[in-house]
Amino acid sequence: MEAFGNDLQNLREKQPLVHNITNFVVMNVTANALLALGASPVMAHAQNEVEDMVTFAGALVLNIGTLTDDWVEVMILAGRKANAIGVPVILDPVGSGATPLRTRSAKRILDEVRVAVIRGNASEILSLRDASSQTKGVDSLNTVDEAGEIAQTLAQELNTCLAITGPVDWVTDGQRVLRVANGHPLMARITGTGCTATAICGAFMAVDSDVVQAVAAGLACWGLAGEWSARENDAPGSMMVGMLDALYRLTPDEFTAQARVEEIRV
Amino acid sequence: MEAFGNDLQNLREKQPLVHNITNFVVMNVTANALLALGASPVMAHAQNEVEDMVTFAGALVLNIGTLTDDWVEVMILAGRKANAIGVPVILDPVGSGATPLRTRSAKRILDEVRVAVIRGNASEILSLRDASSQTKGVDSLNTVDEAGEIAQTLAQELNTCLAITGPVDWVTDGQRVLRVANGHPLMARITGTGCTATAICGAFMAVDSDVVQAVAAGLACWGLAGEWSARENDAPGSMMVGMLDALYRLTPDEFTAQARVEEIRV
Amino acid sequence: MEAFGNDLQNLREKQPLVHNITNFVVMNVTANALLALGASPVMAHAQNEVEDMVTFAGALVLNIGTLTDDWVEVMILAGRKANAIGVPVILDPVGSGATPLRTRSAKRILDEVRVAVIRGNASEILSLRDASSQTKGVDSLNTVDEAGEIAQTLAQELNTCLAITGPVDWVTDGQRVLRVANGHPLMARITGTGCTATAICGAFMAVDSDVVQAVAAGLACWGLAGEWSARENDAPGSMMVGMLDALYRLTPDEFTAQARVEEIRV
Repeated sequence: MEAFGNDLQNLREKQPLVHNITNFVVMNVTANALLALGASPVMAHAQNEVEDMVTFAGALVLNIGTLTDDWVEVMILAGRKANAIGVPVILDPVGSGATPLRTRSAKRILDEVRVAVIRGNASEILSLRDASSQTKGVDSLNTVDEAGEIAQTLAQELNTCLAITGPVDWVTDGQRVLRVANGHPLMARITGTGCTATAICGAFMAVDSDVVQAVAAGLACWGLAGEWSARENDAPGSMMVGMLDALYRLTPDEFTAQARVEEIRV
Repeated sequence: MEAFGNDLQNLREKQPLVHNITNFVVMNVTANALLALGASPVMAHAQNEVEDMVTFAGALVLNIGTLTDDWVEVMILAGRKANAIGVPVILDPVGSGATPLRTRSAKRILDEVRVAVIRGNASEILSLRDASSQTKGVDSLNTVDEAGEIAQTLAQELNTCLAITGPVDWVTDGQRVLRVANGHPLMARITGTGCTATAICGAFMAVDSDVVQAVAAGLACWGLAGEWSARENDAPGSMMVGMLDALYRLTPDEFTAQARVEEIRV
Repeated sequence: MEAFGNDLQNLREKQPLVHNITNFVVMNVTANALLALGASPVMAHAQNEVEDMVTFAGALVLNIGTLTDDWVEVMILAGRKANAIGVPVILDPVGSGATPLRTRSAKRILDEVRVAVIRGNASEILSLRDASSQTKGVDSLNTVDEAGEIAQTLAQELNTCLAITGPVDWVTDGQRVLRVANGHPLMARITGTGCTATAICGAFMAVDSDVVQAVAAGLACWGLAGEWSARENDAPGSMMVGMLDALYRLTPDEFTAQARVEEIRV
């Protein structure tokens, strides 16, 4: 879609500040990915700074990968300020469902902050449902025929846009459903590729108020970086280096031509 | 030894979760090394999460590289839970002996947690002795003839398995003594190669209950990654990238053939 | 200047310990850059350790990139101890001027600690002035004719040595003014290149008590690493890897020959 190339061009021109409150493991690679793409990353988590910092931001990225209670409080503080001034918020509920702290914290953020997008894998997203939900479990998400419909139902239940990533990615706000096919299996062997996808979605959300499209653009862009790198690299160390290079080299026209995103009728 | 190839094959099949409570400097590279090798890393340090997380783990890695008192408390909490449920614990006493806080904290962890393995350089390990120890100092460890014997005595004094790393590595539980000759000098010019060795030992401990062998396998594997990378790279930046690639590419048969581990009669 | 090659040779021989209290984003790359160059990095931020650790150090690097109040207190504690024992201190006031917390914290450190050098971009440095300062703003620093003079005035006002980095870098203690022309535009697309410049300046300060010269050497050295890497790399991922390689490969003679530093008469 031509819209994707336009989004990338806008991103390069506006260089939006993306405010990340994220985990220690991925801070460096996330910042490098955002810079390579053309955005301006900032990592700031002080309780007495995040409300100031987020006022300069085009998007706020919350990621619970190495959470503690005090960091969750700061995420909520920043998120509420972002809500008040119209800065879009994207949440990465890393490991939600794996431990009570993660599930509880992710749900608490969703209760306190109006989150525009949740980006996670199928099991993370499913862990966020109400106990009363009848939505089918993780495994069924691998069935392409049903997956789009389930994603749509989940987005309606959670009342936000979802980006459910895996071998293929699903983006839906409960109405439209987009399927993103870009990516490469080797990305699963590099730490932080999911977290970085979330941050890149944030960068696109800062330049495109059509959230479904912005998130699909972010996932397609990062997936494409994986595809480009995998043409030259076949192992995780060089793969990651090549992905940063690809984010930098990708032109808007190439992005439009190579993004593999289709709208699904559900 | 054929056992090494088998260990690697098991590791790739079981993809054990390795729970790391480690330092900020190496979190990213440690996670990437574990993923490249075939294990599943998780970094989690919240006081109200570590006991839950460690129940899913095949091994617990404690590393005091950027310690503070509250992190040490969390390490002890996780370590005790690991002890209670039979998850093996490996400790990396980074910088023990350099400052009172590090020596005191490493000893405190050893007092409170049953640590299956301590991985450190000679001076770190020596700093952990009782004041009454008569064991010779650091320098003598460079004398190959004496080194194995000294390592064995230290392991008996500390009542755990030791992995003493340097130009050659020694692994001993106070009975058996293994000498690991894999590695490359350029590894010393990359941050976190010691910490990553510890984490990789943890991954092997998760799939082989013979701790001496598992740790020798971990050190040989990481040393071999250095050797492989050094064939193509002669400077630290590219060396590190190549080491991650090598961990991913190494096959069980190559590992068996190229591990340079010998049992020493002491 | 031949002095630069001598500084690098001294650094490689003495391998000074550089104590960093820095931000989470750049800890890994900073440590790797210092190791590749030939220095010995340590990251330590515990309130009950930093005074012990800094006694072993040749320089102390303070960086507020991901500051919180407790980290600032620790920086001051370490800085005062460094002052008491004659260890030079360099401050990187990341983002000062962007939020009240950053500006206030940077000024507080300057009030409490005798900082030998501040390394920042023009807007960060300008944010540190007294309200009464008449010094011109950021934009004028891009005018080469005026820039040296303004830098000199700022150094007099702040009563310390300044390293103001950008397309060209200025180093001045209020008397001498050096202009450093090494560097490459692609460095701006990699996170932590400014922070790493600061740490490398710290390493040179540990071996050369002529602070103006040491800092110019540090900036020239890191800039040269960028130039070398850019000969072979044209995108940020591979660029960073190549910069670490270049730091390792650079010889004292090459450094003397290729450093582009000139003293300005103001």
